Amino acid sequence: MKVGNRHYRSIELAPDGWGVEITDQRKLPFEFRRVVLQSPEEVETAIKEMWVRGAPLIGAAAAYGMALAMRRDPSDDLLKAAYKSLLASRPTAVNLKWALDSVMERLKPLKPEDREKAAYARAAAICDEDAELCKSIGVHGLALIKKLYEAKGRKGNFNILTHCNAGWLATVDYGTALAPIYMAHDEGIPVHVWVDETRPRNQGYLTAWELESHGVPCTLITDNAGGHIMQRGMVDICIVGTDRTTIAGDVCNKIGTYLKALAAKDNNIPFYVALPYTSLDRSIKDAFAEIPIEERRGEEISRITGKDESGNLRELALTSASRVVNHAFDVTPARLVTGFITEEGVVKSLREKELK
Amino acid sequence: MKVGNRHYRSIELAPDGWGVEITDQRKLPFEFRRVVLQSPEEVETAIKEMWVRGAPLIGAAAAYGMALAMRRDPSDDLLKAAYKSLLASRPTAVNLKWALDSVMERLKPLKPEDREKAAYARAAAICDEDAELCKSIGVHGLALIKKLYEAKGRKGNFNILTHCNAGWLATVDYGTALAPIYMAHDEGIPVHVWVDETRPRNQGYLTAWELESHGVPCTLITDNAGGHIMQRGMVDICIVGTDRTTIAGDVCNKIGTYLKALAAKDNNIPFYVALPYTSLDRSIKDAFAEIPIEERRGEEISRITGKDESGNLRELALTSASRVVNHAFDVTPARLVTGFITEEGVVKSLREKELK
Repeated sequence: MKVGNRHYRSIELAPDGWGVEITDQRKLPFEFRRVVLQSPEEVETAIKEMWVRGAPLIGAAAAYGMALAMRRDPSDDLLKAAYKSLLASRPTAVNLKWALDSVMERLKPLKPEDREKAAYARAAAICDEDAELCKSIGVHGLALIKKLYEAKGRKGNFNILTHCNAGWLATVDYGTALAPIYMAHDEGIPVHVWVDETRPRNQGYLTAWELESHGVPCTLITDNAGGHIMQRGMVDICIVGTDRTTIAGDVCNKIGTYLKALAAKDNNIPFYVALPYTSLDRSIKDAFAEIPIEERRGEEISRITGKDESGNLRELALTSASRVVNHAFDVTPARLVTGFITEEGVVKSLREKELK
Repeated sequence: MKVGNRHYRSIELAPDGWGVEITDQRKLPFEFRRVVLQSPEEVETAIKEMWVRGAPLIGAAAAYGMALAMRRDPSDDLLKAAYKSLLASRPTAVNLKWALDSVMERLKPLKPEDREKAAYARAAAICDEDAELCKSIGVHGLALIKKLYEAKGRKGNFNILTHCNAGWLATVDYGTALAPIYMAHDEGIPVHVWVDETRPRNQGYLTAWELESHGVPCTLITDNAGGHIMQRGMVDICIVGTDRTTIAGDVCNKIGTYLKALAAKDNNIPFYVALPYTSLDRSIKDAFAEIPIEERRGEEISRITGKDESGNLRELALTSASRVVNHAFDVTPARLVTGFITEEGVVKSLREKELK
């Protein structure tokens, strides 16, 4: 992804060769800022407080958190402790566990003195792989968009609704749900994206910023509006990402995804989920009973940050309500999902094809 | 409705006997302020800019706008002009037209010199009637809540989800969707209300403020959360208001209502619409084709007002998105509505009973 004229990944090794440079998402879309994380504790904070967010990206960040821990002290004790505390930083996205397990599996058998180098290598490989997975998702999703745009008679815009941010900023590069959209735009298909605001954290603002940076036409709408525009024939496809999906095809994603899937079904609009195999949880039978749904601070709803007339970022209180509850994810049952856009192709069921 | 220890209606004649005193909703929930409108133009602005809002209340306000016009000049010319411009102030709620027609019908045959007095009398009668209608809706809705709470075995809270604000602030007094809730609370039924934030104007903050002022336990949630809490058995009934409902039972209400109705259906949760006959539009066959859906300024989404650390109200910019679309209402098809709570009783179909 380019910002200005420079290519960035959402996470990469800092120029010093050991710090972990990330795009700090807290002040986006108003300020594009890169920060360097230098300890596993900083990585943990960055994940918890959403300096980085998006299932694939928090996996990559956690892997680098392990590398920073091993740089400090490659003992068994810190290996276990860092794994444990990074794993607890956010509960819902399964990529976090996947990445930590992947690093742990590599490091555990090694002698302590070999762990730092191996951890950095594994973290870098996870990042490279994530970028490749997203590229492949893009290619397969592009083919799907082409097919549907042809079926529409190549008339007018091809209108895509997305929820939350499953773009470059949610991954190492390219994005999951947005990767096919960028590619379709680059191929000259006149895509237009309806961007859900995605309360309470308003990741839709990130999505709009990403899309506009790339030149993709898009329109910001409230989370309430998706049903209405689907009823009126203004949406050709929904594409979202996921934080954890079961083999049965139940999709845990940002709160509100389920409502859009219901509306898509009610209006015969295809509803697709874009995911790499790293977001699959093979261990879970019952998504509703077993996936932990993160409950975040009510202040994420009752307070908001924006830019004042002097251009300063500032926080305001929005409501007098004394009780506010903030569930961060919901589960969309498989029966509402038309298909999955994976790195191996577009599939109706995840059982159809054994992904990696 | 009491604020502090004083009873207020959302609209009433000012102590001077001719000005129109309203609760100015722009600074709620942070500041409770009453203002006096002194011209039809001020009433028009108050409706357009949502100093007053809610279908029944804008009807009552428009009636008083006609009275203020007749006070200035009771000519046929101004009668027609005031009717026309007040009618254009907001397009979706049918109560506006109903109230204006009701005043017009009364004034047109009168000699100009008799019009001012008659207009004030008609406006006052419309207000009194609205309060009575809401009280009756409350009584019938209370019976419904009682029945469902009994059916639940009187266990735990009785959890009601509502969207937008259909309370005291949306009517002259009592509210439509909230009237039964206030009465149930007063009767000792342990109601708890899930309050949708209702972007972009965040009328949920008004609802939470109203409910908390009355002592009704409630929890503010994002518009995205309703589906999730319905899936998890945390909602016993949905009750919403409406801006315009057809005899066939298609319900036009605040954008996002349709998504909640879909989720209620998907989870077998009863979905009720509370409405006085003044929100019925008998003239319309096809709600989707014929009800004008207001599109408001994108700034209502991209900018927000809240309270800063010094206690001052302040406006912030939220997003860099260059295109923002703000549809204010949607239509929930009759097939998703369990029933209607009217002033004459609870009915499954509006055809069942010829309301007034």
